Amino acid sequence: MRATIIHAPGDIRVEDRPEPKITAPTDAVIRTVATCVCGSDLWNYRGINPVTKPEPIGHEYVGIVEEVGDDVTHVKPGQFVIGSFIASDNTCPNCRAGYQTNCLHRDFPNGCQAEYIRIPLADGTLVATPDQPSEDLIPSLLTLSDVMGTGWYAARAAEVKPGATAVVVGDGAVGLSGVIAAKELGAERIIAMSRHESRQKLALEFGATDIVAERGEDGVARVKELTNGVGADSVLECVGTPQSMHQALQSTRPGGNVGFVGVPHDVQIDGQELFFSHVGLRGGPAPVRAYLPDLINRVFEGRIDPGKVFDLTLPLDEVAEGYKAMDERRAIKALLRP
Amino acid sequence: MRATIIHAPGDIRVEDRPEPKITAPTDAVIRTVATCVCGSDLWNYRGINPVTKPEPIGHEYVGIVEEVGDDVTHVKPGQFVIGSFIASDNTCPNCRAGYQTNCLHRDFPNGCQAEYIRIPLADGTLVATPDQPSEDLIPSLLTLSDVMGTGWYAARAAEVKPGATAVVVGDGAVGLSGVIAAKELGAERIIAMSRHESRQKLALEFGATDIVAERGEDGVARVKELTNGVGADSVLECVGTPQSMHQALQSTRPGGNVGFVGVPHDVQIDGQELFFSHVGLRGGPAPVRAYLPDLINRVFEGRIDPGKVFDLTLPLDEVAEGYKAMDERRAIKALLRP
Repeated sequence: MRATIIHAPGDIRVEDRPEPKITAPTDAVIRTVATCVCGSDLWNYRGINPVTKPEPIGHEYVGIVEEVGDDVTHVKPGQFVIGSFIASDNTCPNCRAGYQTNCLHRDFPNGCQAEYIRIPLADGTLVATPDQPSEDLIPSLLTLSDVMGTGWYAARAAEVKPGATAVVVGDGAVGLSGVIAAKELGAERIIAMSRHESRQKLALEFGATDIVAERGEDGVARVKELTNGVGADSVLECVGTPQSMHQALQSTRPGGNVGFVGVPHDVQIDGQELFFSHVGLRGGPAPVRAYLPDLINRVFEGRIDPGKVFDLTLPLDEVAEGYKAMDERRAIKALLRP
Repeated sequence: MRATIIHAPGDIRVEDRPEPKITAPTDAVIRTVATCVCGSDLWNYRGINPVTKPEPIGHEYVGIVEEVGDDVTHVKPGQFVIGSFIASDNTCPNCRAGYQTNCLHRDFPNGCQAEYIRIPLADGTLVATPDQPSEDLIPSLLTLSDVMGTGWYAARAAEVKPGATAVVVGDGAVGLSGVIAAKELGAERIIAMSRHESRQKLALEFGATDIVAERGEDGVARVKELTNGVGADSVLECVGTPQSMHQALQSTRPGGNVGFVGVPHDVQIDGQELFFSHVGLRGGPAPVRAYLPDLINRVFEGRIDPGKVFDLTLPLDEVAEGYKAMDERRAIKALLRP
């Protein structure tokens, strides 16, 4: 089969690899219908995460179940399924508490930018759609595997409530998904921090009411101006740098909440600053499994259309161009069709 | 009048000072019925906070209203009142959101270890008791001015819910008050971290179900053992050191919450560690004003008796011995009668 291999920073190739097999009775093998490039794949592509040997890459996927292990009972061959980027048994105490990405038995699907993939803990990880989806729904369903679920978690962790004012820091696919989530959870005012015209446009289409192009202290000042000097109720931090975290914390009102989903890189939070802010803070890899049934419904009902974050669609063989376009910020997110 | 003055670290004296006067129409002057020494006063006493000149000290008080400014309408002379250690107007957006210690017009009563005190923003800060309290209720009412309200906030910030498992890190007056709060909010299991016999005893009396004497990694391991390897739902951090914060975060289950009320000293929280923990974190100076009406009722109804944290009662003239006893950990908390 054709599979994407990262050989070194900037060196993405499609190669022939053996098809994956069932290795545990809880596995499933899926024929990939669509996959995509994640902002976090760029860390490897840019050499921020070290790449020491050629490795399969990719963790977002939708597809048709090909084969299941003997213990798998929740999904069956022929079904269209979506799964989380982290596999979970969905039965351990952490899963039952709604934090499947902290499953006591979690596993990490990898190499999903390929024609076939093996998903561990299939019963706990995969959710089948009610029907075979029409072609136009596939991009949106694909986002539920990671970015849309991550934006949703950011909004939940930031405790967005009906009538609230929400700020979204970060205008990548996750930030834009966060705008959708804030709207669906009832935020009345949604301030998107963005300085890129195409992303500003999409943010507005997704429900943002205000765009703030300023960053850092200027961005904070602008948010304060828009919130009677007090700050926002909920801030979704979708970047993961010291600057974006600081900006998020400073933009939140006392008693408000920051949900942070950008994996922090060199971020230290000063205890005393957090203390005197009265701001609540929760982050983490999003438990997208928890949201799949609800979000699948919202996509099928046409309430949300997060698939619009894909502004580039390529055949799998051109995956290298997908990485390049995202790295150069020519594309928000690249969808791949095997 | 007699007032407590700190001259230098370790140097506490009672001196004659002029009685405070109404200086703003929103002020009240109170004749102090009881006051006390706070753990945070010890920072000055120990020279951790610099003491550059002789200064009045103390911020916890109950008393009888002597005189009010022209704009004060909620309290009147002769009433027995309790007030927060931070004065607030109780009408600004932050106050209305329940974060009175972040009031946009906040002020800081000081010099409360004295016969008379001036309280700014009296209408927003002071709450009168329904009747003149009997003598035996006075210690408990005094704790509502700071420590009991702070323990209450720690439990609220840690989102203690009925049936929950709560851990209390810190066995000072605030931590012990946190045990009371966790119990009142319905925690089923309350693990008090303490290695001092008298404090362990009081924690058990207040509702703790388990005592853990170990600290640091050993303490975390013990909490994990008591919670099926997962960690506690809610952890109240009532110390403020890097060690205690680390211990609190590590003792919490994914999706659980840490409420931190020990003012952080040299605490830095690693963004990535917090991220992967899925733990929610909120702290701050407790908005005790928000809890006063409810907590006054609980004291009058005899539901709670936080006054037991006072294991030393002295006349105001012997305040220096109160500081000394607390500094040497001979006393949990010293009550002073002017």
